[in-house]
Amino acid sequence: MPEQSQRFEPSGVITLTTDFGLSDPFVGVLKGQVLVRFPQARMVDLTHAIPAHWPGEAGFWLARAFRYFPVGTVHVAIVDPGVGGARAIAAVEACGHVFLAPDNGLLAPVLESCDASVSRRVVPLALERIGVGAVSATFHGRDIFAPLAAELAVGRLPPAALGPPVSDLTPGWIEEPVVERMQVTGAVVTIDHFGNLVTNIDRRHLRHLSEATVRVTGRELPLRHTYTDVRPGEYLALVNSFEVLEIARAEGSAAEGLGMARGAPVTVVAKRS
Amino acid sequence: MPEQSQRFEPSGVITLTTDFGLSDPFVGVLKGQVLVRFPQARMVDLTHAIPAHWPGEAGFWLARAFRYFPVGTVHVAIVDPGVGGARAIAAVEACGHVFLAPDNGLLAPVLESCDASVSRRVVPLALERIGVGAVSATFHGRDIFAPLAAELAVGRLPPAALGPPVSDLTPGWIEEPVVERMQVTGAVVTIDHFGNLVTNIDRRHLRHLSEATVRVTGRELPLRHTYTDVRPGEYLALVNSFEVLEIARAEGSAAEGLGMARGAPVTVVAKRS
Amino acid sequence: MPEQSQRFEPSGVITLTTDFGLSDPFVGVLKGQVLVRFPQARMVDLTHAIPAHWPGEAGFWLARAFRYFPVGTVHVAIVDPGVGGARAIAAVEACGHVFLAPDNGLLAPVLESCDASVSRRVVPLALERIGVGAVSATFHGRDIFAPLAAELAVGRLPPAALGPPVSDLTPGWIEEPVVERMQVTGAVVTIDHFGNLVTNIDRRHLRHLSEATVRVTGRELPLRHTYTDVRPGEYLALVNSFEVLEIARAEGSAAEGLGMARGAPVTVVAKRS
Repeated sequence: MPEQSQRFEPSGVITLTTDFGLSDPFVGVLKGQVLVRFPQARMVDLTHAIPAHWPGEAGFWLARAFRYFPVGTVHVAIVDPGVGGARAIAAVEACGHVFLAPDNGLLAPVLESCDASVSRRVVPLALERIGVGAVSATFHGRDIFAPLAAELAVGRLPPAALGPPVSDLTPGWIEEPVVERMQVTGAVVTIDHFGNLVTNIDRRHLRHLSEATVRVTGRELPLRHTYTDVRPGEYLALVNSFEVLEIARAEGSAAEGLGMARGAPVTVVAKRS
Repeated sequence: MPEQSQRFEPSGVITLTTDFGLSDPFVGVLKGQVLVRFPQARMVDLTHAIPAHWPGEAGFWLARAFRYFPVGTVHVAIVDPGVGGARAIAAVEACGHVFLAPDNGLLAPVLESCDASVSRRVVPLALERIGVGAVSATFHGRDIFAPLAAELAVGRLPPAALGPPVSDLTPGWIEEPVVERMQVTGAVVTIDHFGNLVTNIDRRHLRHLSEATVRVTGRELPLRHTYTDVRPGEYLALVNSFEVLEIARAEGSAAEGLGMARGAPVTVVAKRS
Repeated sequence: MPEQSQRFEPSGVITLTTDFGLSDPFVGVLKGQVLVRFPQARMVDLTHAIPAHWPGEAGFWLARAFRYFPVGTVHVAIVDPGVGGARAIAAVEACGHVFLAPDNGLLAPVLESCDASVSRRVVPLALERIGVGAVSATFHGRDIFAPLAAELAVGRLPPAALGPPVSDLTPGWIEEPVVERMQVTGAVVTIDHFGNLVTNIDRRHLRHLSEATVRVTGRELPLRHTYTDVRPGEYLALVNSFEVLEIARAEGSAAEGLGMARGAPVTVVAKRS
């Protein structure tokens, strides 16, 4: 078990990442159950538009977003094809933050992004301790995650009480890019609101390449610094504000223009080694 | 008038349920008007995606969601085909919560779900008392509901000051299911974000049936406990986490797969009485 | 420079208006960066559904919405086709509120709506003072606007420290209507969630007309007070709750029914002068 770099001191902030959408009262009642236990909780929606049952994208964004919240924040991520089954709840303490998610690989990108972390599976004793008894078969977000997050964030439940450390959380969903001497091959992980194609290729994967260009679906795109480095309507690649490679179109939608979707291959090629 | 089971002690929490959507600043300015009067209000969006002008669905969800919020919460629900007309405002005190809505039947499901309740129509004197004078013809949410909710939630306006008790609020929109000895016939009330078809059939309507199956559009579906009780892609019925019967498809959308919409009939049939 | 009518006393409230959408974690991480500096900030989403890169609509709504928030509120509006370029940040102090936006004309409608205001461009020294150093090329909302808003709203950074007053902010995007003796000609600026067509014609533009009617795409519509003044399905024009002329359809969508979009001409014609 790696040494912990930072002890968890709750900030009172809770973030929420789900595939619940905003058209039903699901997110609202989850928040209601947090407020019942922790009236002063400050909750922030990260996103509720993760594609239904696709945990990979939730973990991808969470690992890149959590550092922008106060140290001591509790991050709840609920995306699970297997809700209602016997899925355990994973709890990760990392970089001074705490993460709760179904043990389905969702938190793997978080573990990769912090050097020191402690993983746990929430044990029945932890739920008993906070008075979580009979729960619905189909809404663990409201009935288990909300009470856990509230008790962690208010400071009544220390992370160590969630269960003993484990080292076998379910592995992640998103493949690492293939890094070679003269090129790096990855894939589109998600498409943002502006139609930018966000990939699994991080800045660190590209350090050994100089003067690279980016190949997608038969096109070769320049690797630039920002959207205004090309003319409106032109395509480009850039390392975005979350430190991952994205394909963009200045003042337009790259996803629409290129007809590319999640999973599409993206290759960064060095002009010289 | 039934005896009140719980006196209203404000929790400082306000929930919002509307058909305003989130693309315009309507919800935001309503919140602004609450903060002007009650700077420490904690507001939770239940949903703003009720189909435009369909109060039935708002009341259906509200009656099933409010218990997950702290006792003493003020619930504001604004869905009204007749905005701008002479519609009164209904105020209901029930189960220790207060509810505000247009007097158009929206709150009927809330009344049904609490044994003791007091209904009122907001009188002009109550609005005068909190300084609500000239109001717009078309945005009562901002100009009347927000001030009322703020004053109730901060504790300056007791529910009794809203008006005298009445017993003739406008009746509800959603029909009760037909309960017979060997079957119960209801209808789809709403479709959630995952494509689950949520019906007006409550768990209590089904108590007298044993080993039932569910009939929809020429199919017979098993009545199970949770989504993982069938294989991915298969359909099932279950009593969901809000205690109502829903038609679902494991890891898929029942609404899409079955081509069913709001209003579609659903029949639960006993295998034996 | 006009005299200031009200000194800025922070209320602790921050509103957010962007084109970020709600499907990605962009709005969430911006809020996280506010909470890092101002844990008790109360943030309200005005809208995140401004059409991508269309600052005009953001300013239009902001100028009509800000008065419903407590005096002393900080309003952040981020819609910018030129993100990543050398765009300055405009800061306006007006009517006791503070506004932050890219200097691209977005804030012009706010300036028009307050008699006394002070405009500034945020200088590098102001960013240094609050410890904003290296910033991403593509996410100024998180890296510059969030820290600025937090420091203004918590009261550690007075507006005067943002930079010297200027009088040459970039002019606005939305044309003023043409006001003539017997008619006023404007255009549709935005379409709300209900399909109402909202125009750039304010109530004040219409004061000199009596008994007017409204012409759109070959139809003549009555100018009425509220939606229930016509029968369900009928069209009408009215001055809405934000004091601008809108085209509506009782219990329906005018946008769908009339096939009109943003930019469509609308003429108000006096029956007699």
